Amino acid sequence: MKVIAYSDRGFKAALEKVVQRGRQDTGAVEPAVRTILKAVERGGDRAVLRYAKKFDRVSLTPDAMRVTPEEIKEAYYKIRKEDGDALRLAAQRIATFHERQRTKTWMYQEQGATLGQAVLPLDVVGLYVPGGKAVYPSTVLMAAIPAKVAGVRRVTMCTPSGQAGINPYLLVAADIAGVDEIYRVGGVQAVAAMAYGTKTIAKVDKIVGPGNIYVATAKKLLYGVVGIDMMAGPSELLVLADESANPSHVAADLLCEAEHDEHAKVYLVTPSRKMADNVARAVQAQVKQLSRTAIAAKAISRHAVAFVVESMERAIDVANEIAAEHLSVATERPFDYLERIRHAGALFLGRYTPPAVADYIAGPNHVLPTGGTARFFSALSVNDYVKISNIVSFTKEELQRVKDPLVRLAHIEGFDAHAKSAESRFL
Amino acid sequence: MKVIAYSDRGFKAALEKVVQRGRQDTGAVEPAVRTILKAVERGGDRAVLRYAKKFDRVSLTPDAMRVTPEEIKEAYYKIRKEDGDALRLAAQRIATFHERQRTKTWMYQEQGATLGQAVLPLDVVGLYVPGGKAVYPSTVLMAAIPAKVAGVRRVTMCTPSGQAGINPYLLVAADIAGVDEIYRVGGVQAVAAMAYGTKTIAKVDKIVGPGNIYVATAKKLLYGVVGIDMMAGPSELLVLADESANPSHVAADLLCEAEHDEHAKVYLVTPSRKMADNVARAVQAQVKQLSRTAIAAKAISRHAVAFVVESMERAIDVANEIAAEHLSVATERPFDYLERIRHAGALFLGRYTPPAVADYIAGPNHVLPTGGTARFFSALSVNDYVKISNIVSFTKEELQRVKDPLVRLAHIEGFDAHAKSAESRFL
Repeated sequence: MKVIAYSDRGFKAALEKVVQRGRQDTGAVEPAVRTILKAVERGGDRAVLRYAKKFDRVSLTPDAMRVTPEEIKEAYYKIRKEDGDALRLAAQRIATFHERQRTKTWMYQEQGATLGQAVLPLDVVGLYVPGGKAVYPSTVLMAAIPAKVAGVRRVTMCTPSGQAGINPYLLVAADIAGVDEIYRVGGVQAVAAMAYGTKTIAKVDKIVGPGNIYVATAKKLLYGVVGIDMMAGPSELLVLADESANPSHVAADLLCEAEHDEHAKVYLVTPSRKMADNVARAVQAQVKQLSRTAIAAKAISRHAVAFVVESMERAIDVANEIAAEHLSVATERPFDYLERIRHAGALFLGRYTPPAVADYIAGPNHVLPTGGTARFFSALSVNDYVKISNIVSFTKEELQRVKDPLVRLAHIEGFDAHAKSAESRFL
Repeated sequence: MKVIAYSDRGFKAALEKVVQRGRQDTGAVEPAVRTILKAVERGGDRAVLRYAKKFDRVSLTPDAMRVTPEEIKEAYYKIRKEDGDALRLAAQRIATFHERQRTKTWMYQEQGATLGQAVLPLDVVGLYVPGGKAVYPSTVLMAAIPAKVAGVRRVTMCTPSGQAGINPYLLVAADIAGVDEIYRVGGVQAVAAMAYGTKTIAKVDKIVGPGNIYVATAKKLLYGVVGIDMMAGPSELLVLADESANPSHVAADLLCEAEHDEHAKVYLVTPSRKMADNVARAVQAQVKQLSRTAIAAKAISRHAVAFVVESMERAIDVANEIAAEHLSVATERPFDYLERIRHAGALFLGRYTPPAVADYIAGPNHVLPTGGTARFFSALSVNDYVKISNIVSFTKEELQRVKDPLVRLAHIEGFDAHAKSAESRFL
């Protein structure tokens, strides 16, 4: 782990490089993605299955796309009971937290006007779950449970099936989360099928879930045809530490992020040179003892930086500039800093809050904005599964009261009929 | 206005055509848009000004891009005092409504866990305001005021300047709304400048505001580089009417939508054949008396349909299927239907609530989802200018309590270091 201090040459450039990290340029893959989108929009199931064969080497008939209740039952037999229990506990805690995010329709009266907003769940949501070696049943819980808490009627899930079939943990997690139907298709073709609908897969209103650059680009190009969630990139952790932090714990947390994949990004920001050196040393020692040592070591050597700054004040500024996905505050009185932290996907406060606890079991969502997008994207929440409609109702007296300025504003914009529609009520 | 009844041949097809309306295919303009985005990302101000010259025929130096305080002062002299007062009244009412949408940071404790979410305003927001003949100072208010209510520090606005300069109403509206800086650039180049930042125009976190297909496509392609708002299409109004409605008022409301542009879409859904015929007749008569007769007549002849259905129940179903931007409930007891309406950008209840009152002065936002996207997009709100960060803090005892299932879940996903990061706290 590289340690660089504010007095070093190159500090500014190193920080700037981190701030500018991770802008995915989707331009190169857009034409290929659009071709698949068009083909599925026109060809439906047949096109989906053609691409499944081409890219995933899976031959399916339309009838076999949907995972059967028997397969889900079998999945439970394939996993340990204790693992199922752990998933259920996580699900329960996730549901409890997300219940608090629910907002209700409200209205109020002001003189003769009734104004408000209706908060309504989406009808159908599509959940994309990547295949490949890394399977994240926890992400299935995190994406599906808030939808169910929001009141979404129908949650569809698509995930590619390799030769070995769909990982049983994914099926169990989906079942626990209340996913209504699962299709064994992946990639751009799955995203397209959910966006446009096919004979087998119903059109959804919004597509949520991570994926590779092709899936991410497909979602982006479909924005407006359906709603989409944020664009997710590699995992990130920034630890803000003062002298009170335990270097060994900080190192363990950094490695927990680094083991995700070699693109994972971890940073330490501290006013203490000693802390930076100790953490770097601990990382070096601990990285050798992991089952995913090669991956974590690559991520650390490529992306890990410890920034030594002038003060905790400056450390907070740097954390805000970086706007990391995960921000761990490893200081004496972490809640004291809460008000000054402006940009982070999630905040972990205190030495007994390893990021892993929030990844799996704390309850708040672990689908979080990466690559600096915490400046404008939010943690996934119940809000992502509802929509707001405005409510307006005027009495005759109230309309009379605002008629003149209304007519004036309509005329400013050259909208005669707008003015007349209000005036007509009094003719 | 075409009237079609449920018993008619072609009813189903006509309804389906409306439900499927308005999907903008941005594929054709994507390459051209991407070229401009890339040029501005690399070339900054110089590229912006080159495109301003090419597309808007305006020659500017970087210094002259920003509108000066003097120009804004002059704009006030160019408009009538009463018009300024009307804009101020609208601004006040918009602010009052949006204040109610503010949500606060919250936290709670459950056993040894402190969980919550921080609700934080965006730092910098960019507002795109189209130029051309149609100028909408009301939209400047609607887009900028919620940002200011949310606590956004800096609101930037870009709008193209023709030979005659920027419309003074836009400048006054921006000033009243609290816009912090205004640049006289438009089109894709303006959107790109705000997304990437140039020497003159600061990088923003989110871009909001309507625009033509090029601007809309630019925003879509920039999703992830910045946040964006919904994709806006032509205006729409659906009127749900029973026999108690006043056909002349309904016609006036439909025409108010139709005068926007020839792509505007207006629908009547009613169980009463008589009502449908009377409204169609009233539209025919009133359309001739407008200042924008040609535009409204074109919109009506192209897109207006009155659907006569079996019952009010069925009428509500049809309204939900269409998911219109504006939904006017012109019935005896409009609030009785509120609970069953699931998809609409905004609802106007009762005979003294012409859509125009909500367009200008009611208070709720008039930036609303169109083209059926009310199924998943929301009315613009304070929510669009904040973001949510999760807060997690565990005590030692609480971490101990969840450690085993946490470790189990980490191992399911093959994440050794995740497990260790929790276990290390107890070594």
